[in-house]
Amino acid sequence: MNKERIRRVLQTMQEMDLQQTLISSPASLFYLTGQWIFPGERMAVLYLNIHGDAKLIANKLFALEKNSELPLIEYDDTDDCIQILARSILPGKTGIDKDWPSRFTIRLMSERKDIFPVIGSPCVDQTRLYKDKEEIRLMRESSRKNDMALKKTIEALHPGMTELEAAERYIKESSFLGSSSPSFDPLVCFGAGCAQPHHTSDQSVLMPGDSVILDVGLKWKNYCSDMTRTVFIGKATDEQKRIYDLVRTANEAGRAAVRPGVPLKEIDHTARKVIEDAGYGQFFIHRTGHGIGLDVHEYPDVSSSSDAVAAPGMIFSIEPGIYLPGKFGVRVEDLVCVTEESCETLNNASRELTELLF
Amino acid sequence: MNKERIRRVLQTMQEMDLQQTLISSPASLFYLTGQWIFPGERMAVLYLNIHGDAKLIANKLFALEKNSELPLIEYDDTDDCIQILARSILPGKTGIDKDWPSRFTIRLMSERKDIFPVIGSPCVDQTRLYKDKEEIRLMRESSRKNDMALKKTIEALHPGMTELEAAERYIKESSFLGSSSPSFDPLVCFGAGCAQPHHTSDQSVLMPGDSVILDVGLKWKNYCSDMTRTVFIGKATDEQKRIYDLVRTANEAGRAAVRPGVPLKEIDHTARKVIEDAGYGQFFIHRTGHGIGLDVHEYPDVSSSSDAVAAPGMIFSIEPGIYLPGKFGVRVEDLVCVTEESCETLNNASRELTELLF
Repeated sequence: MNKERIRRVLQTMQEMDLQQTLISSPASLFYLTGQWIFPGERMAVLYLNIHGDAKLIANKLFALEKNSELPLIEYDDTDDCIQILARSILPGKTGIDKDWPSRFTIRLMSERKDIFPVIGSPCVDQTRLYKDKEEIRLMRESSRKNDMALKKTIEALHPGMTELEAAERYIKESSFLGSSSPSFDPLVCFGAGCAQPHHTSDQSVLMPGDSVILDVGLKWKNYCSDMTRTVFIGKATDEQKRIYDLVRTANEAGRAAVRPGVPLKEIDHTARKVIEDAGYGQFFIHRTGHGIGLDVHEYPDVSSSSDAVAAPGMIFSIEPGIYLPGKFGVRVEDLVCVTEESCETLNNASRELTELLF
Repeated sequence: MNKERIRRVLQTMQEMDLQQTLISSPASLFYLTGQWIFPGERMAVLYLNIHGDAKLIANKLFALEKNSELPLIEYDDTDDCIQILARSILPGKTGIDKDWPSRFTIRLMSERKDIFPVIGSPCVDQTRLYKDKEEIRLMRESSRKNDMALKKTIEALHPGMTELEAAERYIKESSFLGSSSPSFDPLVCFGAGCAQPHHTSDQSVLMPGDSVILDVGLKWKNYCSDMTRTVFIGKATDEQKRIYDLVRTANEAGRAAVRPGVPLKEIDHTARKVIEDAGYGQFFIHRTGHGIGLDVHEYPDVSSSSDAVAAPGMIFSIEPGIYLPGKFGVRVEDLVCVTEESCETLNNASRELTELLF
């Protein structure tokens, strides 16, 4: 159990006026207990109350380590795990993990009519938001390996290749570098596919003239990387060059705006303004970025509705894009870590216009 | 929209005294609307009320088909989707999908203090329980292909191979047969690994004397198969032969007990008794089986606490096993479909003792 992290969670619980909270997200459980638990249909929760009492309630089949710091209450498939949990908690305002399946919440509420459920995830999300030195080191290493795997994948691109083949190549390269798995399904899009917001890599074949978006990430010692580069097959057209420059400039402007004290919505605005001022605002159809760490998408958003303010240790993506339906798309994404003065960009892969000639 | 299926859901809603229900599980949405939606962090729900009003509330990014039968309410990332939902529902007893993330349920309850949430999934699960002719045909074909892919995988086993290599081989064979994906990560265990309840396929190497458990399934036109065979590398020992015969006999007894009107807990008891009577009851550490269809695990359990009774069209697994810690394990699993008189076993792969000699 990580006592310093628990202490910070308790502090946020106090600010939220919570009597207790139930934590079930695998990454949050790992963050606080050092153990990964993937419960499937079964239940595993870390219970924490405002007095600092902590206990883990989990199915015997998970075969968790016992340790003296964190009491473990085990149940088996013939037990009613919600009744066991209901007997162990206080009345009052109760934090519930945002992703906890509703079947557990609804049953707990019917067993304990004296609890008042609210979404409790901010207690842990606010703590995970600030990465410590060791976490920053792992995030830096994860992105360094991501740079390398992406470079190899770009070198392997050739006309006739499918999006899925390129995605598989990335997985192979990241596995060579010792990564246990990608941090999400690698998204490689060719040509007009780059401009479809929900396109997934498929059997589309690479052709001269195509733009290629490669949005990829890997896990390194549990920590996720995530970056995007766009390259062109053959000489880029004037339009492709203009759009590419614009997106790269928006990416640079976004990163240059990052320093402690700046609201994330202002960073979104700075990147977005570059694209809007050039008349392409309607083709930048998503937020500028998102937090990242043990999960590939973490609190907070870098968007116009974000309430977060940059502070040292925060890591998030800056990923503006322009998508021209039926034609092509460009996105350039990097991870940044907020430092005392400004920020460190964790990715070092080239952002120069890249034309692959065959 | 499948009107006959919606009619049956409405009937169950009436029995459960529900005013309305919210359906979010991807397989249930597909079952009722014919569309797969994987919402990720976003929200997609089918709303159904007791008066037969149905509407789909989904993010624009999902780019769903519009059709005149089922009104579609679209929102975008800047909208508050829960407020939109809250404006569209009745007061009263409200079914909530068992897997819906608690963040949605808790917010909906705070927007609408006049609803009373209960777990609503049984409305759809009770309907999905009874497969129609076309579903049975697809389930039969899925299992036929599973038999073939498993046979090829067993033929490829050889000392020195790793569990992961055998699992990958199965995926390749099922893909050759036209399956879009396995229905779950294939589980191949060697030797003592067969006896660990939560073992996953790893770099363990196949050795003479090992038992090999292969628990595999594939998807065929959305329908899942799932079966297990156990084979031996080299001549089986007397103990291995005795345990194998016992498990096979339990599997046969379980399948022979299946006919309309028999409670599933009695089927569990019949299979379990074979193993208990031989003195190995403590080594059969899981339920006898589970329902299957669009999802690999569906309602109901075949277990001592099951409340379901066999009826024509139900499809479930019969999968007794014996696991001797530190030594080896055996499981034999088949899918059965309840018929008018008894049942049809969907798997035809050999259950004879198989010794692979090298």
